[in-house]
Amino acid sequence: MITIRDRVRFVETDLMAVVHHANYLRWFEMGRVAYLRAAGVALNDLMAAGYIFPITDVSCKYKNSAKFDDEFEIRTKLTNFTKAKMCFSYDIVRCADKVLLAQGKTQNVFTNMEGRITRLPESFFQKINALYSQENEE
Amino acid sequence: MITIRDRVRFVETDLMAVVHHANYLRWFEMGRVAYLRAAGVALNDLMAAGYIFPITDVSCKYKNSAKFDDEFEIRTKLTNFTKAKMCFSYDIVRCADKVLLAQGKTQNVFTNMEGRITRLPESFFQKINALYSQENEE
Amino acid sequence: MITIRDRVRFVETDLMAVVHHANYLRWFEMGRVAYLRAAGVALNDLMAAGYIFPITDVSCKYKNSAKFDDEFEIRTKLTNFTKAKMCFSYDIVRCADKVLLAQGKTQNVFTNMEGRITRLPESFFQKINALYSQENEE
Amino acid sequence: MITIRDRVRFVETDLMAVVHHANYLRWFEMGRVAYLRAAGVALNDLMAAGYIFPITDVSCKYKNSAKFDDEFEIRTKLTNFTKAKMCFSYDIVRCADKVLLAQGKTQNVFTNMEGRITRLPESFFQKINALYSQENEE
Repeated sequence: MITIRDRVRFVETDLMAVVHHANYLRWFEMGRVAYLRAAGVALNDLMAAGYIFPITDVSCKYKNSAKFDDEFEIRTKLTNFTKAKMCFSYDIVRCADKVLLAQGKTQNVFTNMEGRITRLPESFFQKINALYSQENEE
Repeated sequence: MITIRDRVRFVETDLMAVVHHANYLRWFEMGRVAYLRAAGVALNDLMAAGYIFPITDVSCKYKNSAKFDDEFEIRTKLTNFTKAKMCFSYDIVRCADKVLLAQGKTQNVFTNMEGRITRLPESFFQKINALYSQENEE
Repeated sequence: MITIRDRVRFVETDLMAVVHHANYLRWFEMGRVAYLRAAGVALNDLMAAGYIFPITDVSCKYKNSAKFDDEFEIRTKLTNFTKAKMCFSYDIVRCADKVLLAQGKTQNVFTNMEGRITRLPESFFQKINALYSQENEE
Repeated sequence: MITIRDRVRFVETDLMAVVHHANYLRWFEMGRVAYLRAAGVALNDLMAAGYIFPITDVSCKYKNSAKFDDEFEIRTKLTNFTKAKMCFSYDIVRCADKVLLAQGKTQNVFTNMEGRITRLPESFFQKINALYSQENEE
């Protein structure tokens, strides 16, 4: 599990005085980017090599509302990984009291720049798979 | 089914040159607001009466990418409705060729301003239920 | 002046219960795109021809707050136009009572895909200039 | 000057492959919030006391493009401060090479919850003014 921390931005709130629900998908994305960085893969390098990684599925369950200025953790796990796709799960947790705010899942596939489904090349695969395997052994 | 149309904004794209996936949740929200408006319920009136309607679940499957300046339809159906909650489904369809871009589902519950679960009062319930019943008879 | 209409989205509000100020820049952008479309220039065609148009300056004065579900007009004028740059001004007006909500200005320059300053080619220039000249004669 | 650091989110990019210009206003806001926090004022406390602080003016000059995953600094200065208003200036600087990406200015006024112009109470004023004075002496 890779954990990063952030703080709720004013712009992320809505007139219900809580974080607008669409922002959690942005936080999941930050978690995903951090996970891959921890595995040694920068998305800029992946794109420079001709690969993109469109989202095909996302879901989120909202448990408690995040509010302006709250500090929160994004806890990201890779739950399924092949050369064709990667599935992540996420917990958003409020730092102050460790309350679970939201839980989500995403699936990305790998495509070339024209959007055709492709396979992740060995070099990138091995880096991500090393972290994925290590986590699943624990 | 209530249908509205809009056009992809430049700001809604990302560096993959397609609409960023989080924006579809904003479009679902617009569909939901339009559905309730068609039923005669303005969310501002609901909030003025002391009711809010937090999202508890959202999911989306992405089928094809929307691009900048594309015109699209948001087709919204109310799939489950009680005084405690409302479940909607959405199809996002590109106008030019009627290709399905994404399909989503959401669930809202009704709470008071303090976030406590409550029941929608009869006056609002009847308006929404009239449209819901009419659609399900068809 | 080219005018388009839209309606405030729920997601565009913040916890002050008004539209977050950054959203007006998105509305200006929509006005700009609509102006160029009215002149016969689609930004997608401009990009396909190898031109982009980064913003170099933006300013906005906020007069009155837009609220959720308000209908508003974006009134866009081209105030300065050469092959090197285009300057627009914008009025955001609430439809219900014609109250001015915000006034803004932007400047875009034209560059190639590598970001180097360039000149707009004659074909695009003439289309935009035709609308620009016609408006300034009025 | 109060400095915070952040990293460009994927969602903050647009199809020109750079950060969309509206996001800089969100970064300025983060800088403002951090400045006031450094002065001992949490915006949540200010709102709990019945004060809000709408933006009346914003401007930004864009110098160089921020890109996905760039680390950047938000350097915030309070340039004018009275019980009626606060004016900030901002530099957005890329961490890797200290290149200036954008420079901005904002003005906020203080109002009550109904939006009527008011004066900041002494307790909040003194905290912010202490940091403001200290910085201007240096």
